[in-house]
Amino acid sequence: MYEGALQDVIDELGRLPGIGPKSAQRIGFWLLDQPTEDVDKLAGALTQLKQKVHFCSVCFNVAQDDLCRICADPRRDGRAICVVEESKDVAAIEKTREFRGLYHVLGGAISPMDGKGPSQLRLRELLSRLADGTVTEVILATNPNLEGEATATYIARMLADFPGITVSRLASGLPVGGDLEYADEVTLGRAFSGRRTV
Amino acid sequence: MYEGALQDVIDELGRLPGIGPKSAQRIGFWLLDQPTEDVDKLAGALTQLKQKVHFCSVCFNVAQDDLCRICADPRRDGRAICVVEESKDVAAIEKTREFRGLYHVLGGAISPMDGKGPSQLRLRELLSRLADGTVTEVILATNPNLEGEATATYIARMLADFPGITVSRLASGLPVGGDLEYADEVTLGRAFSGRRTV
Repeated sequence: MYEGALQDVIDELGRLPGIGPKSAQRIGFWLLDQPTEDVDKLAGALTQLKQKVHFCSVCFNVAQDDLCRICADPRRDGRAICVVEESKDVAAIEKTREFRGLYHVLGGAISPMDGKGPSQLRLRELLSRLADGTVTEVILATNPNLEGEATATYIARMLADFPGITVSRLASGLPVGGDLEYADEVTLGRAFSGRRTV
Repeated sequence: MYEGALQDVIDELGRLPGIGPKSAQRIGFWLLDQPTEDVDKLAGALTQLKQKVHFCSVCFNVAQDDLCRICADPRRDGRAICVVEESKDVAAIEKTREFRGLYHVLGGAISPMDGKGPSQLRLRELLSRLADGTVTEVILATNPNLEGEATATYIARMLADFPGITVSRLASGLPVGGDLEYADEVTLGRAFSGRRTV
């Protein structure tokens, strides 16, 4: 609809998740008004992305070197591994500053609907990290949904044979700052069954 | 928060209009999963954008050559000029296939609140296009809001001295497919005052 180069940008932007044709057009015209350096900076960052970002050879988190920043940090506690579905989850947990151990990124969750079984997750790699006996705690931090729960249950059973490893699951309950009235019944039920004496 | 190159992409995407930090993160991770060629295609399109897209030397629509596709098309009717605020508006009108004349892109509308006066619009260039007497009709297609109406009124007065040029304004009224009940009173008022015998 527009001249070649502008239409190309609008088409390419429109392929990104969550960006419809109207947003793509709006961003395309906005970019046209920006200084060339700024647009080149975005283009450059995109080119660098696939060249520079790899996955950590130990925990499969996003990494720029062989090891990710967390695995490469000697101050992290190597006795605890937090198992998550995706690299995004690592970032979310890091923001809490509650955990000082290491991570293991599974690369998804067990989901028969999407044809994803345990063999497609990085479970063998998790087992080999537990082999030398350093790790004493595994925290299962998969998502609190059907697939995440199934994955956590599967891993918990798999690790039941490992002596000396405590396996735990993140607590479910009411979100902080939320309203009891608006909590769904499953969450409220979990909050009840997980109640703690104060 | 993430390793350098991924964070760079997320930061740059987050600067685009309508993309918040969460969307930027989602797109960043999504791009990481895409084939390198696809990401390079997006990066390439962005680089080309500022190099290739200019503004038409006649109508100031976006153009890849000296003239935009519309001004360069000999089949277009040079006797009618449709005046719009932005290049996007040209595309919107072209989609209707109702108009076969040429355009003139003002580059905005009169808006004292934003410090934008008539001198910042491409009005002198419009006048010089009318000088040789070819143009017999000017259609004011600025937006149906305060700034657009003010701009249309200003141009209409400016062109009142030109003999042999019909100046018209796009009709205001009920949007097709809309519901009378939900129309705002100004639109409904316009629909009444602009009623046509059938």
